[in-house]
Amino acid sequence: MNELSPSQDVSAFRFRITVAYDGTAYAGWQVQPATMTVQQRIEEALKSLTGETVKVHGSGRTDQGVHAAGQVAHFDLLSDWIPGNLTKGLNALLPQDIRVFQARRVKPDFHARRSAIKKEYRYFIWNAPVMDPIRRFYATSVYKPLNVKAMKAAARVLVGRHDFAAFTANPNRVVESTVRDVYSLSVRRTGNLIIIRASSEGFLYKMVRSLAGLLLRVGEGAVTLDEVSEILASKIRTARVPTAPPEGLFLWRVWY
Amino acid sequence: MNELSPSQDVSAFRFRITVAYDGTAYAGWQVQPATMTVQQRIEEALKSLTGETVKVHGSGRTDQGVHAAGQVAHFDLLSDWIPGNLTKGLNALLPQDIRVFQARRVKPDFHARRSAIKKEYRYFIWNAPVMDPIRRFYATSVYKPLNVKAMKAAARVLVGRHDFAAFTANPNRVVESTVRDVYSLSVRRTGNLIIIRASSEGFLYKMVRSLAGLLLRVGEGAVTLDEVSEILASKIRTARVPTAPPEGLFLWRVWY
Repeated sequence: MNELSPSQDVSAFRFRITVAYDGTAYAGWQVQPATMTVQQRIEEALKSLTGETVKVHGSGRTDQGVHAAGQVAHFDLLSDWIPGNLTKGLNALLPQDIRVFQARRVKPDFHARRSAIKKEYRYFIWNAPVMDPIRRFYATSVYKPLNVKAMKAAARVLVGRHDFAAFTANPNRVVESTVRDVYSLSVRRTGNLIIIRASSEGFLYKMVRSLAGLLLRVGEGAVTLDEVSEILASKIRTARVPTAPPEGLFLWRVWY
Repeated sequence: MNELSPSQDVSAFRFRITVAYDGTAYAGWQVQPATMTVQQRIEEALKSLTGETVKVHGSGRTDQGVHAAGQVAHFDLLSDWIPGNLTKGLNALLPQDIRVFQARRVKPDFHARRSAIKKEYRYFIWNAPVMDPIRRFYATSVYKPLNVKAMKAAARVLVGRHDFAAFTANPNRVVESTVRDVYSLSVRRTGNLIIIRASSEGFLYKMVRSLAGLLLRVGEGAVTLDEVSEILASKIRTARVPTAPPEGLFLWRVWY
């Protein structure tokens, strides 16, 4: 039997939204029982606005406490909407920590996760003896001066097409391949702020926070450049690669 | 009778601290009954740390919801402290939304308010159709595009030595003079962010938010450059000068 998915239902309209959120108050993006998630908030707002029970599909999950400047999601509605009205209506119903920047009507074969060709994450580190209080939920605090030059050198080792098995926490999932092409990985200091930017065709589970975690260890002088190469080549996740805290991480942009 | 104030007590040690805070959760700087203030939090932390009941004197008040990047305060202790230990001890006891950046031992005639020779405030505006969720407590949201060129021109009218009576809300206070020398007042756009910087020998009560409020009206096209001159010359506070919302305002730096 060849069932029609909602996306193939000619009476449905598919929309794509770009969403920014402060992840501090949420158990991540994806709907989970007994906790509040960003996806759930958006589904509730869509239900209130349209009267329809809608499943929202994100470009990927973000973990608890992780933020987004440009998460992308799609969903199908049985009724048609002028995209600008969808943006206004959703923002009127959503809490202030979730904002819809843009809504567009897209073709029924658009898929927020599967159609993505590139993703960028940014990881923010506040590197000063005392944390800036207004950044406390939006950057990771590192008191001791980090060696940014060493972090840049390590980033150059990690960029490119590699098996990133040593950089994923993968407790309950089966992934076909842990090979990923990291298009860019850069480290830049601006005053007390250090920003790591990572772009790829796609990242493994907790991969960006693992890359940031190792770069932090390098910046602290605890891991050498040779050890970075070794760890990458080992393809085994060990305690040498910590997962950097979630508050520094932003899903920055998704390309289609 | 000539009573000794604590500052004249030779057995007391005077300290100066530089403090940053996220004002979102506080009823401003100054201790008030039945609400929580930044000053009160610091006095509580000093009491826990030193065992002494200490009165903390700020360089000036900040209103409810207003932030500080560099508020300065002084206080006297009967026991001596290595300034770095005071910083560490206070930060260990204070909540994460208040951070002490620096502590210094100062001469007994140093006074956080009276010794200040210059203050800088910054006012942040997020000027885009949709608010950035992570800036929602740290910038004022203005949806419609503001005319920054007109705001710059208005700022040039307001800078300098003037009677700023039209720019203060002064319900229960008697002030000797409402003449102030505004050393600089600038408006700059960086992407969606517009930053107003104001420096002066000292500002009247709600003066910075009143200047920002009028500049916002100018940016919206609701007040002309001629009207700005008129309002300044009128020396009367009217509804033409709104008080801009507190969340955009930061006490940035105090000079001694």
